[in-house]
Amino acid sequence: MKTTRALNTKKTEAREFQTRASGIFFTVKDVLYDKRSKFQRIEIIRNKDYGRVLLLDGLVQTTERDEFYYHEMLVHPAMSSHPRPAKVLIIGGGDGGALREVVKLPVKKAWLVEIDGQVIEACREHFPWLRRTFKDARAELVVADGNVFIDKVRETFDVILVDSSDPVGPSTVLHQEAFYRKLKAKLNPGGIVAAQAGSLMLHLDSHARKSAFLRRIFRHASLYLGPVPTYPVGTWCYDFLSDKVAPAKVRTLYIPDGLRYFNREVYPAAFALPNFLAERLAKGKWGLSRPARKPRGGP
Amino acid sequence: MKTTRALNTKKTEAREFQTRASGIFFTVKDVLYDKRSKFQRIEIIRNKDYGRVLLLDGLVQTTERDEFYYHEMLVHPAMSSHPRPAKVLIIGGGDGGALREVVKLPVKKAWLVEIDGQVIEACREHFPWLRRTFKDARAELVVADGNVFIDKVRETFDVILVDSSDPVGPSTVLHQEAFYRKLKAKLNPGGIVAAQAGSLMLHLDSHARKSAFLRRIFRHASLYLGPVPTYPVGTWCYDFLSDKVAPAKVRTLYIPDGLRYFNREVYPAAFALPNFLAERLAKGKWGLSRPARKPRGGP
Repeated sequence: MKTTRALNTKKTEAREFQTRASGIFFTVKDVLYDKRSKFQRIEIIRNKDYGRVLLLDGLVQTTERDEFYYHEMLVHPAMSSHPRPAKVLIIGGGDGGALREVVKLPVKKAWLVEIDGQVIEACREHFPWLRRTFKDARAELVVADGNVFIDKVRETFDVILVDSSDPVGPSTVLHQEAFYRKLKAKLNPGGIVAAQAGSLMLHLDSHARKSAFLRRIFRHASLYLGPVPTYPVGTWCYDFLSDKVAPAKVRTLYIPDGLRYFNREVYPAAFALPNFLAERLAKGKWGLSRPARKPRGGP
Repeated sequence: MKTTRALNTKKTEAREFQTRASGIFFTVKDVLYDKRSKFQRIEIIRNKDYGRVLLLDGLVQTTERDEFYYHEMLVHPAMSSHPRPAKVLIIGGGDGGALREVVKLPVKKAWLVEIDGQVIEACREHFPWLRRTFKDARAELVVADGNVFIDKVRETFDVILVDSSDPVGPSTVLHQEAFYRKLKAKLNPGGIVAAQAGSLMLHLDSHARKSAFLRRIFRHASLYLGPVPTYPVGTWCYDFLSDKVAPAKVRTLYIPDGLRYFNREVYPAAFALPNFLAERLAKGKWGLSRPARKPRGGP
């Protein structure tokens, strides 16, 4: 899950401003759910092309049609790189999509720590094909703040997946150095963290800033990319973090059957970064996350 | 350039339906150009985040901020794979972006064949940083139907780039088998064709259909991908076609300095296809270009 900027959801149309002056719209076939939880407004609408769409505070979190792009690319690069991911922690991800991908592998136990229990309830009700996932005997659902949970939990994990919102509001802490140091402390030897990291084009400042501190914490810290049609600008970034596993050196991949996006060609390809992003991460020079350049300075 | 479905441009907002029930919107800062040519309505608006935006019949063709994603990925995979691309033909591409990329390399001559001369005029006026490109001594601008031009031209080419609209209206013919056979007949030995091929998620039927006939015509026919934030679903497809050059076997790449997207890691990565696309191209089985699946049949 992720969030960005403003919102405006009517009965006939859901709109999300992805930048200050552009965005995505969905015509609304019907509204299946619209309630305010302790944390946020939770809506599930139906759209003719994307099926069921979950919005939190008016921002698209997941759609029936394209959620697999996101969930497979968040989960499987890390999971497939680990020879024996027995214990897996998911922070966020109340819609259940990441959990569904995790339990496709022979894990022993998977914890899902979602701050808003009402998101889980809404998704369990309106994304019925996830009910089986939530019922999986290996899954433990915990309604708690991920940042508090990680302080208290005694378990350590082979893979930790951060399926959080973007760094606005309650999720801000999940994008800070202190949180990633805590995650590292709860990783088993050889463990891997994968985290959603924001939009390719819109969050360059955040990528550059996070990349700097993640490289101080983890021996291997790489950004990788994958398309998500309904997320801002259509391409999403993820962090791959480990002290032991370098994605470029992984030779044996553990990939479950039946995936719709991820495969052994997509894996290394996802780590190929365009110049403007690679240069920004390396030198902090490029400024493409700011508004469009002045035409006269154009190429 | 590419097109998709419906349109609705007001003074305050430009909207493009990318599917039947969803799409992209831009708030309009000002309208720089709005005229009807013999072929289409040509608009250039300004948006706070994307800068100047060219719309043809209301469909986004290119924006100042993200055009380099598209133009670099259309042009450089083919151009960098050819050891000596002396003569280059661009079909379509009246906005000049593909031509700008081509003349970054030491080509001898580049023909740009655009059906609508008024598009060239509008872009020359309102994308002023392209003026130098259009004035390049090696560039020859031809206002003509690409399908007619290819019948009559006596030249043969090292690289042909098809920067057309999508298969609706006058561009339909540029997506058919007969046209690609003509292109092949005008290729020099070792020549390469690259063509824009539509959206990752929305044009699967077209990819499957074209892929079948392109493999009959060219020994190597591969689809490759790249993000384009303002094109439908944010990821675009391109065809790479050659009798001699297999992208996976290219070892030496000719890449000009100063590119913002394309590089030697991005090149092979672009050819890694997600399962749903690879399987559709291979077997014609998957149906994800149709509306969202029924929830009960979900994963």
